[in-house]
Amino acid sequence: MGEYRFTHSVNVSKEAKNLAKIYGADEEKAELAGMLHDITKELPRQEQLKIITDSGIILDDVQENAPKLWHGISGSLYVKDNLNICDEDILNAIRYHTTGRAGMSLLEKIIFVADFTSQERTYKGVSTMRKKSRKSLDEAMLYGFKFTFTDLSKRELAIHPDELACYNEIVMSNLSLKGNNK
Amino acid sequence: MGEYRFTHSVNVSKEAKNLAKIYGADEEKAELAGMLHDITKELPRQEQLKIITDSGIILDDVQENAPKLWHGISGSLYVKDNLNICDEDILNAIRYHTTGRAGMSLLEKIIFVADFTSQERTYKGVSTMRKKSRKSLDEAMLYGFKFTFTDLSKRELAIHPDELACYNEIVMSNLSLKGNNK
Repeated sequence: MGEYRFTHSVNVSKEAKNLAKIYGADEEKAELAGMLHDITKELPRQEQLKIITDSGIILDDVQENAPKLWHGISGSLYVKDNLNICDEDILNAIRYHTTGRAGMSLLEKIIFVADFTSQERTYKGVSTMRKKSRKSLDEAMLYGFKFTFTDLSKRELAIHPDELACYNEIVMSNLSLKGNNK
Repeated sequence: MGEYRFTHSVNVSKEAKNLAKIYGADEEKAELAGMLHDITKELPRQEQLKIITDSGIILDDVQENAPKLWHGISGSLYVKDNLNICDEDILNAIRYHTTGRAGMSLLEKIIFVADFTSQERTYKGVSTMRKKSRKSLDEAMLYGFKFTFTDLSKRELAIHPDELACYNEIVMSNLSLKGNNK
């Protein structure tokens, strides 16, 4: 793992611990999942693919066409098989940190958001994202999805159905909270 | 049906005929599907819902929360039951004209695009959309989806999985044409 990726992992770990404190999640699990979330990101793509196919997982069409989605899957398999981490919540937090999914646990949401708000991040909107992350994980995720959908569609890249399912779940939960059936 | 909706339907019908001529689809079916695509759009929502539930169709979560998606479904059921139109391609073109879906037929794509490019449309980008529609239906649809995803996510409204499946199919077909595995 290169220096940038290592610094990023440390920062996500710290940020995840902070968020765990705010939202009442397990701080140790958050630190560990944050530290490990990108563990296979710098492995060559073919090695990542081998980890995935060796495990019996069959990639769907979108995943096949988007190697950037492989490191969440290969990372969760790697820490299970090589670091003997069996906690399903930590494994899922690593697996789904890029796309999100419907029905995410608190820990999964924390890792997803911490990856957007870690200290070294400098994209336009990061300060809004950080502010939102302190008020509501769902609102921060929604803000992230707006950015992702606009960016990916502008670049004509595939969007994984798990990302949409996660976005729709938050949107519809907000609608039902507002009692607003648009 | 009010005057605006009637004019829109006539215009979509004309536009669909033009596109059918360009792309070698059945011009009569295109005219008819264009004319009928919004046939139930101005029915009260509860009447649309009754048509749908009476047919045995169960709305998914996104459809339940987005009554704007109901008129495609209720419209296709209405023309089948009341106008005795049994041509599956026409019925599907009406049903999926708002969301699109994976595996659309030529006629379905024509009605989807004609709805964006009909003569009375004035949104920003309509002239680009019209130009694209003359070169490639898929490229025009992709342009439409970029607009839709950006707009719906900005307004925090749900996006139907069929829209994403349609978008992803075009994106991935373009990637494989380019031999470009990003």
